Amino acid sequence: MTAENVISIDLRSDTVTKPSAEMRAAMASAEVGDDVFRDDPTILALETRMARMSGKEAALFVPSGTMGNLICVLAHCSERGSEVLLGDRAHIHLYEQGGVSQLGGVHPRTVKNNDDGTFCLKELELKIRGDDPHYPVTRLVAFENSQNKCGGRSIPVQWIKQLRELCNKYGLALHCDGARIFNSCISQGISLETYLEDCDSASICFSKGLGCPVGSVIVGTNELIRKAIRLRKVLGGGMRQSGILAGAAIYALDNMIDRLADDHKHAKQLAQAINDSGKNRFKVDLSGVDTNIVIMWVDPDTTTPDQVVKALEEGEVNVRTIQFAADLVRFVFHAMISTAEAEMATKKTVQVIQQFINQ
Amino acid sequence: MTAENVISIDLRSDTVTKPSAEMRAAMASAEVGDDVFRDDPTILALETRMARMSGKEAALFVPSGTMGNLICVLAHCSERGSEVLLGDRAHIHLYEQGGVSQLGGVHPRTVKNNDDGTFCLKELELKIRGDDPHYPVTRLVAFENSQNKCGGRSIPVQWIKQLRELCNKYGLALHCDGARIFNSCISQGISLETYLEDCDSASICFSKGLGCPVGSVIVGTNELIRKAIRLRKVLGGGMRQSGILAGAAIYALDNMIDRLADDHKHAKQLAQAINDSGKNRFKVDLSGVDTNIVIMWVDPDTTTPDQVVKALEEGEVNVRTIQFAADLVRFVFHAMISTAEAEMATKKTVQVIQQFINQ
Amino acid sequence: MTAENVISIDLRSDTVTKPSAEMRAAMASAEVGDDVFRDDPTILALETRMARMSGKEAALFVPSGTMGNLICVLAHCSERGSEVLLGDRAHIHLYEQGGVSQLGGVHPRTVKNNDDGTFCLKELELKIRGDDPHYPVTRLVAFENSQNKCGGRSIPVQWIKQLRELCNKYGLALHCDGARIFNSCISQGISLETYLEDCDSASICFSKGLGCPVGSVIVGTNELIRKAIRLRKVLGGGMRQSGILAGAAIYALDNMIDRLADDHKHAKQLAQAINDSGKNRFKVDLSGVDTNIVIMWVDPDTTTPDQVVKALEEGEVNVRTIQFAADLVRFVFHAMISTAEAEMATKKTVQVIQQFINQ
Amino acid sequence: MTAENVISIDLRSDTVTKPSAEMRAAMASAEVGDDVFRDDPTILALETRMARMSGKEAALFVPSGTMGNLICVLAHCSERGSEVLLGDRAHIHLYEQGGVSQLGGVHPRTVKNNDDGTFCLKELELKIRGDDPHYPVTRLVAFENSQNKCGGRSIPVQWIKQLRELCNKYGLALHCDGARIFNSCISQGISLETYLEDCDSASICFSKGLGCPVGSVIVGTNELIRKAIRLRKVLGGGMRQSGILAGAAIYALDNMIDRLADDHKHAKQLAQAINDSGKNRFKVDLSGVDTNIVIMWVDPDTTTPDQVVKALEEGEVNVRTIQFAADLVRFVFHAMISTAEAEMATKKTVQVIQQFINQ
Repeated sequence: MTAENVISIDLRSDTVTKPSAEMRAAMASAEVGDDVFRDDPTILALETRMARMSGKEAALFVPSGTMGNLICVLAHCSERGSEVLLGDRAHIHLYEQGGVSQLGGVHPRTVKNNDDGTFCLKELELKIRGDDPHYPVTRLVAFENSQNKCGGRSIPVQWIKQLRELCNKYGLALHCDGARIFNSCISQGISLETYLEDCDSASICFSKGLGCPVGSVIVGTNELIRKAIRLRKVLGGGMRQSGILAGAAIYALDNMIDRLADDHKHAKQLAQAINDSGKNRFKVDLSGVDTNIVIMWVDPDTTTPDQVVKALEEGEVNVRTIQFAADLVRFVFHAMISTAEAEMATKKTVQVIQQFINQ
Repeated sequence: MTAENVISIDLRSDTVTKPSAEMRAAMASAEVGDDVFRDDPTILALETRMARMSGKEAALFVPSGTMGNLICVLAHCSERGSEVLLGDRAHIHLYEQGGVSQLGGVHPRTVKNNDDGTFCLKELELKIRGDDPHYPVTRLVAFENSQNKCGGRSIPVQWIKQLRELCNKYGLALHCDGARIFNSCISQGISLETYLEDCDSASICFSKGLGCPVGSVIVGTNELIRKAIRLRKVLGGGMRQSGILAGAAIYALDNMIDRLADDHKHAKQLAQAINDSGKNRFKVDLSGVDTNIVIMWVDPDTTTPDQVVKALEEGEVNVRTIQFAADLVRFVFHAMISTAEAEMATKKTVQVIQQFINQ
Repeated sequence: MTAENVISIDLRSDTVTKPSAEMRAAMASAEVGDDVFRDDPTILALETRMARMSGKEAALFVPSGTMGNLICVLAHCSERGSEVLLGDRAHIHLYEQGGVSQLGGVHPRTVKNNDDGTFCLKELELKIRGDDPHYPVTRLVAFENSQNKCGGRSIPVQWIKQLRELCNKYGLALHCDGARIFNSCISQGISLETYLEDCDSASICFSKGLGCPVGSVIVGTNELIRKAIRLRKVLGGGMRQSGILAGAAIYALDNMIDRLADDHKHAKQLAQAINDSGKNRFKVDLSGVDTNIVIMWVDPDTTTPDQVVKALEEGEVNVRTIQFAADLVRFVFHAMISTAEAEMATKKTVQVIQQFINQ
Repeated sequence: MTAENVISIDLRSDTVTKPSAEMRAAMASAEVGDDVFRDDPTILALETRMARMSGKEAALFVPSGTMGNLICVLAHCSERGSEVLLGDRAHIHLYEQGGVSQLGGVHPRTVKNNDDGTFCLKELELKIRGDDPHYPVTRLVAFENSQNKCGGRSIPVQWIKQLRELCNKYGLALHCDGARIFNSCISQGISLETYLEDCDSASICFSKGLGCPVGSVIVGTNELIRKAIRLRKVLGGGMRQSGILAGAAIYALDNMIDRLADDHKHAKQLAQAINDSGKNRFKVDLSGVDTNIVIMWVDPDTTTPDQVVKALEEGEVNVRTIQFAADLVRFVFHAMISTAEAEMATKKTVQVIQQFINQ
């Protein structure tokens, strides 16, 4: 479909990354077994490594981040009548089809997300339910790190510690949707173990920044993972020789984490260029560009996000992005975007901005 | 437990009303049959009358307002993967144990309630889901009239009309939690039919302001009620000779609606007295006292709601109320509170307020 | 609809009974309160009495037998992924719309019911699940006493004891659907307490043989009833001044139990008459007429059940029955059928049988 | 763990197959894209091919056969209150953790499986529900081909045609659990298209007989697959560059189907050898060995299945099998078992049998 002389730079999501030759080789040579019988050595090696890296007792490979989150929420909320408290811009609430309710009967109640990805702990505390048959039973709090809908914000460790205290006070479990937690780790210079220290569970994706074709891992206690194995099976996530996929993940742990810093640098450069050229009609909250995501605000009096998305795709450099809200465009950097391509994308974005401003 | 010389005035809720001698007589003489076979003439008479009064095709008697709401939400959301949009202070969201999710798998998404019980239609529109596998399917909007948690506010007809237009634009159904809709009707001088004109369904309680011991009625199209009969059965709400209960409801339709004006008058008098004596440390939004509910704000520097609730229960006039939030006390007037008792309750409240102010 | 000179004898079900004048008086004078606040003295009195009669710690009033069973199954199976084992002719499996699955996500697995209402304990044992992610977790066994679909059979105490041992061996809970357990008690001369000795919970109807308009009671441990209160609320079964209904139930406990023996006598007389006149083309398993239900087999070469049902309704004595299967007609005796009416119904049935035989 | 000089022959299941070098190469070179955006060319190629091969409008790749069945049942039963009728030895009923109920609220009702994998259509017809609020709504019939629990039996086309007629008569959908349908195709010399002609949907595994590491495909109408994409997403089965896995599947379609005949031959040879040596104390229903599965009955007076399983694993040739019921052992042949290994396994089995007989 793409003409030969067009350079395509796909910034729609970091999920679009394709495995490199080296990653493919790792998959092709992975030793495998039947993971439903827990016989796959590469899966077991990946799980052991992720458990150790995250400072948890155990880990489990699952086909997607959506399943990882769903399994964790359902494992914490295994009793009928449970409620989860989570940010109103949480991926779990917005982009997972309401699975926690639809399939698990878990009632969600939202707390307003701050722009930095956190939420007000006082509001959270007021929403924790007392013991009354009119109420569901609050059993879980979930947050997201980095917070995608807030622009890839890394969550402050100090805030997580305060959140943990609150959870302890009320006997609640704490789950971290860590789809892009390695981005936060690199951005903040914090280890995975430290970042997850106060969480009872986390779901961590390999198919986003780490560039793997398929898969996520959830981490937690042995008890949680025991429940998770049952949930993975009933959801249809029990796979056989999935060591093929784990091979890519192990490769990524060795080779793809440190390079996330490049994506972050590319994101900051784009954000700066937008603000430099945007005359306040196209702008980005620079202080919020923690990781690989850039959310650009588009002045409604100037144009609309879909016009911007369209203009970015026209011409010899085709930059693919997505409309993220009625006045927002999202750019996501990832392993398939070289520094040269990032610069081209930035240049193209500035051109498009100027075009709209000069109309 | 109550000493003989203590006068007890129970303002905890209008659900505490006991049937009068006349209402009991109506129950005792009601003609009955087996309603699971749809053979109970008093039930059928009540349903026919409610359908007519509300301008709908059909009606169904159910054991409670909670079941009425649950059935309506589930009937509108009969396909797996549905989402309901509703106010963040909706009874359905706060006080029905998350049943729409827990039992029905329906995902709720909230829109911030304004203090007048409405919500921002622009926010609502932004939250209606497009067609994407990441999203549940928005199928229903629910609002509450009168809005309990907002202080018994009657909802403006004009706003309902605008909400209906939005629902039409997106093909959504509209449900009214009308637990106390007769209060709104009397308060605003609007007929039930007019108030429900733009709604596809409503749940209407007889056990609150109308003083019946048990029961609610839902109204809607024949198709909706056909689904509702199935849902009532699976929930265990199919009762046999329930004409006994319908007898009370028919009595209430004849005798208990107009008198709601007295409850509203009593509420306004109490609210005025609180503001007159409260020195801005105990206050009520007077413009918001539309019906039989008074929400009193308590200045945290002066005292706490539970101290107020306790003080109101002490002494020879025992006024029972409930804490409604961290800084709020709720009073609800109803058929068992005579004007004399309302005055005593008001007097007692003023005394308690002065006591706290003078401490 | 019924012509004036026609005598109607309704044997469709014992749910059709209407309250007597005395029962109505008991309702009309019942002291009431708000049962959602647990303030209704008549409800509390009924629950206390039923707990004591059944030898259990606690009891709870619910609107129907269907809700009673649903609550008990869900309370025992409060963890996601549970399975209930029950007879393939169980009311819960056949006539409650699959509510345990539909609303509660509980997976049912059936054991073949014997004609006497029991099932093979060896088959049951083989169906109890081991610990494996491929399986749900077996948590509950449910049986029915008297077993409606098996013809109102009373379950042998000795078999219940063996069933209990099996449940103990595997850590399973045991629920009794006792919709008509008072019929079994009277039929076998066994007290309610003895009959329920080995059960963790039971659901007991007042709206069937005991002639009340509405209501059932569930019994069990304090812990179970605590869960049941929450489940009743979310299902919409929390009612307000339901003491009106409990008044009828208390009256029934005093006045309606012993007279069930009359219904049983009437059933046996009808069954005998059918066999005496039926020439093996209409017959009843006499040894199976334990209680108030008669299941008549109709020889397909002679006629069909719907023809028999229709013929019974024609003429001056209108006997109403239901087709119960492709070759079965069911008759149910109850409090509204006097001995004279039972004799008329028997006479009419014999006439109809002879008519078909002589065709 | 396995000593160097031990030959291990794993007949536990055909899910244990590991990808060959050629299959690994196909994966390593597969062109990929983001399948959540429907951008993966290898996935699309596999789906197009499977749709064409099965004579259906569309196909969808899913991570497992369990998810394939779950999605199909839920897609057909998208309305709350649905019931599926299926064999009492169906994999969906026995080995998928009751997911259709647990996650989807679908009520299962079973029909007794005959030993040939079919069930009695008369019994089925009697179990289809009429329109009554006491009943769920029967919406789907599911059968399994080949039928694992019946010993890998291939289902007669003629019976499927009769089943389809019954489904048409009552407006029911028909689903085929075709986890091992290619085995039936090869065994009976019937094309996939012909075998699925009368089915509305099927789930077909690549990770069993076809030797792929991961994955199944479901086939059906465009409308069904549209629903299935949503269900796959909410279940967490939406994967990104899953073309890696589809590459293996395409390789298998080209190279692994015809060779199933070898597995069937190996199975028949083992079965014959068991009967020749078993003296009726170890036996197989020879007429039932249609495909790659052998179910051996073990005389309880001689020994027990777990003793047999253990004895087969001892010594220099380690044959791994599983106990399949209280008196049954299951052997499954597959792509990793050469004719030489099949002969060794047969020889070992005969030795073990003789050992037990001679004890």
